[in-house]
Amino acid sequence: MKKITIGPMTLLYPKPALLIGANVDGKPNFMTVAWAGIVNQSPPMLSVAIRRERYTYRGIEENQTFSVNIPSEDQVTETDYCGLVSGKKNNKVSDCGFTVFYGKLKTAPLIEQCPVNLECRLAQKVELKTHVLCIGQIEEVHINENCLTNGKPDVEKVRPLEFASGVEYAYFGLGAKLAPAYQVGKKLIDGKKGLTKKN
Amino acid sequence: MKKITIGPMTLLYPKPALLIGANVDGKPNFMTVAWAGIVNQSPPMLSVAIRRERYTYRGIEENQTFSVNIPSEDQVTETDYCGLVSGKKNNKVSDCGFTVFYGKLKTAPLIEQCPVNLECRLAQKVELKTHVLCIGQIEEVHINENCLTNGKPDVEKVRPLEFASGVEYAYFGLGAKLAPAYQVGKKLIDGKKGLTKKN
Repeated sequence: MKKITIGPMTLLYPKPALLIGANVDGKPNFMTVAWAGIVNQSPPMLSVAIRRERYTYRGIEENQTFSVNIPSEDQVTETDYCGLVSGKKNNKVSDCGFTVFYGKLKTAPLIEQCPVNLECRLAQKVELKTHVLCIGQIEEVHINENCLTNGKPDVEKVRPLEFASGVEYAYFGLGAKLAPAYQVGKKLIDGKKGLTKKN
Repeated sequence: MKKITIGPMTLLYPKPALLIGANVDGKPNFMTVAWAGIVNQSPPMLSVAIRRERYTYRGIEENQTFSVNIPSEDQVTETDYCGLVSGKKNNKVSDCGFTVFYGKLKTAPLIEQCPVNLECRLAQKVELKTHVLCIGQIEEVHINENCLTNGKPDVEKVRPLEFASGVEYAYFGLGAKLAPAYQVGKKLIDGKKGLTKKN
């Protein structure tokens, strides 16, 4: 297959579509991000890249806490909306009809409608050029009871959104289960033992 | 919907399944990671969380460069394999039948079979408890010509893998396109103007 070089760009697949929450001047606000990921196993930590001029960022600095809310396919309109407008001029909670609740950290607003909610304490900030990488320690996880299978979170019940560039930027759903992890690759180990042959 | 608290854990949906490459003692090696994300717009940067005892990490330190290869559904077995075994004892390149090439940075090995390859220069390391967050500046992007639509990367042609916890840990494909981004949320802006009504 012929390869083309297209220059440096922020290309990565898949990226999540998440709603980051913070109290700004005591009121809950949410912004949409796609630039987030897990960064540490123990203690559990994640990172979220945010432009420092964002309204939500002010709230993170104010309280040193934030939330990560994982929307399902049912919240695709609200998720997009929270990325289109600023909390400086809009009350996104009422515009989206979100029911907000608080957990262990008291100041990280959580969205009832999102099936998964993570409460984070700001652990470290990494100042990059256009963005600040907010590293949060995950202090508590809330999940809809109906998104568990045998007591564990089940992605097929959460039905998260994926934000990606196709013909246009769009939200995609979860696709088909292709193979079990930590298992399908064993075929190649067996192959080395001569049980199967890899070309 | 009833919410359950399940304690702090590294839960995030969706997570990518990526092959991180580095030359270790002059030979290419690849490891599988799910903990990665874009972190800066300009210059384009990403982060990858890696345990410091990993063989690949040695190569990143050695050359101050690494690659991020985005496998397609066709490489699900090889992707899983590269997360099961260590390059200390295995030649993953030959075991997987990968064709390796090099680009602009000369020392970041790229996998021909993966539809997208990012060349990264290590820009910063953030030392966390169990992992090191390697922040890389994306210096070049290689993409299969047949994964472009109107000259732009098209996720539906790349067919990336998503790593997620369902009933078991598994790889999933890209799902259905649900809605255009920066657009579907405008419904709620119109709603505020009285054109449509949101309950």
